[in-house]
Amino acid sequence: MSYTYEYPHPAVTTDIAIFTVIDDALKVLLITRGAEPFKGEWALPGGFLDLDESLEDCARRELQEETGLEGVYLEQLYTFGAVGRDPRERILTVAYYALISLDGQRVQAGDDAADAQWFAVDALPALACDHADILAMAIDRLAAKMAYSTVGLQLMPDEFTLSRLMRVYELAGRKVLDKRNFRKWILGLGLLEETGGKWSDGAHRPALLYRVKDKSRVEIVRK
Amino acid sequence: MSYTYEYPHPAVTTDIAIFTVIDDALKVLLITRGAEPFKGEWALPGGFLDLDESLEDCARRELQEETGLEGVYLEQLYTFGAVGRDPRERILTVAYYALISLDGQRVQAGDDAADAQWFAVDALPALACDHADILAMAIDRLAAKMAYSTVGLQLMPDEFTLSRLMRVYELAGRKVLDKRNFRKWILGLGLLEETGGKWSDGAHRPALLYRVKDKSRVEIVRK
Repeated sequence: MSYTYEYPHPAVTTDIAIFTVIDDALKVLLITRGAEPFKGEWALPGGFLDLDESLEDCARRELQEETGLEGVYLEQLYTFGAVGRDPRERILTVAYYALISLDGQRVQAGDDAADAQWFAVDALPALACDHADILAMAIDRLAAKMAYSTVGLQLMPDEFTLSRLMRVYELAGRKVLDKRNFRKWILGLGLLEETGGKWSDGAHRPALLYRVKDKSRVEIVRK
Repeated sequence: MSYTYEYPHPAVTTDIAIFTVIDDALKVLLITRGAEPFKGEWALPGGFLDLDESLEDCARRELQEETGLEGVYLEQLYTFGAVGRDPRERILTVAYYALISLDGQRVQAGDDAADAQWFAVDALPALACDHADILAMAIDRLAAKMAYSTVGLQLMPDEFTLSRLMRVYELAGRKVLDKRNFRKWILGLGLLEETGGKWSDGAHRPALLYRVKDKSRVEIVRK
């Protein structure tokens, strides 16, 4: 069957705001663009959709090609499509945000990216195109989700103390938390188990180490 | 400046799940498609993006053309882009959800829509394409937002009692509410004022009528 059908088509990309916690700061990975337009400017990793891949597959592929990162937790954020947002032609971008624990993964700029660096979200450089707007929305969305979900576990290494987990929730949630309430909530969900090990900084009493019971089953849970 | 740039382009549409409360049910407006593919099937109103309009403008235009509705509250929901979701070619759709109070607005099928009818969300017909998935997500998103925001005021006529407002929150939020807590919350926000009038069904004590102080300032407020 054929259809009468002659609509103009926009180009479509995906862009990814990927977050991690390094030391004591929430950070986002930015690349410098290797080609025009915006050559040499900082931007979110991303690129054009292939017609035979899903939007999420496109986001994962672009992230891998431009930064080397794989196996990340990914959620669709919003589709940005203002007329004139790109100088080439009408381009819509389906933005994603992603979370990763950096254990064992190195960032490696590749493909269209000349450089890739983690930036603290409180000390961002100027960004190409409308990527500052996309990133601002991603930071807000992440902060909102930290208030009621287990999504923060995606930022943790295999073993962690409850103090560290709460600190990550504070950094990504942009909010000071009450220690007693946080522990009661996270332990009450039944997602964590003690590893049997302890961690000490030498100055304080050793703290119990925890891990997620079944990482494939970590889902969003409302408080 | 010109760029080497030869990526295939998908088609892009917007689709709109528009909700209202009629009598004692949350309802969504569906159209029957006037052309192939899916001719004669129930579907969400929507259509192809023009390259010189924003995504939201496209959603508003398609809603007006196919149903006659204007001036609605609109939020982007999610972009659906599975390979093969449409038999014509690769088509992404940026889905929106919308809320309206029906005061003074009549639904009128037009453009590509052969018919337009309100359906209770608990008694939906089979839908074309992946529109059942889109609608299910819209119903969930609306229910979630009713739990912490003033978005429900968008479903109200100019004057209403607090009992009616709470009932609309219960229907759209899909949750039984506590009368005392609901009144404390909504009045505590300072968004409502008494009109001076009262409403009575004849059987109960007359209830105070309220209106939104400044409709342009009604925004999402977290509890």
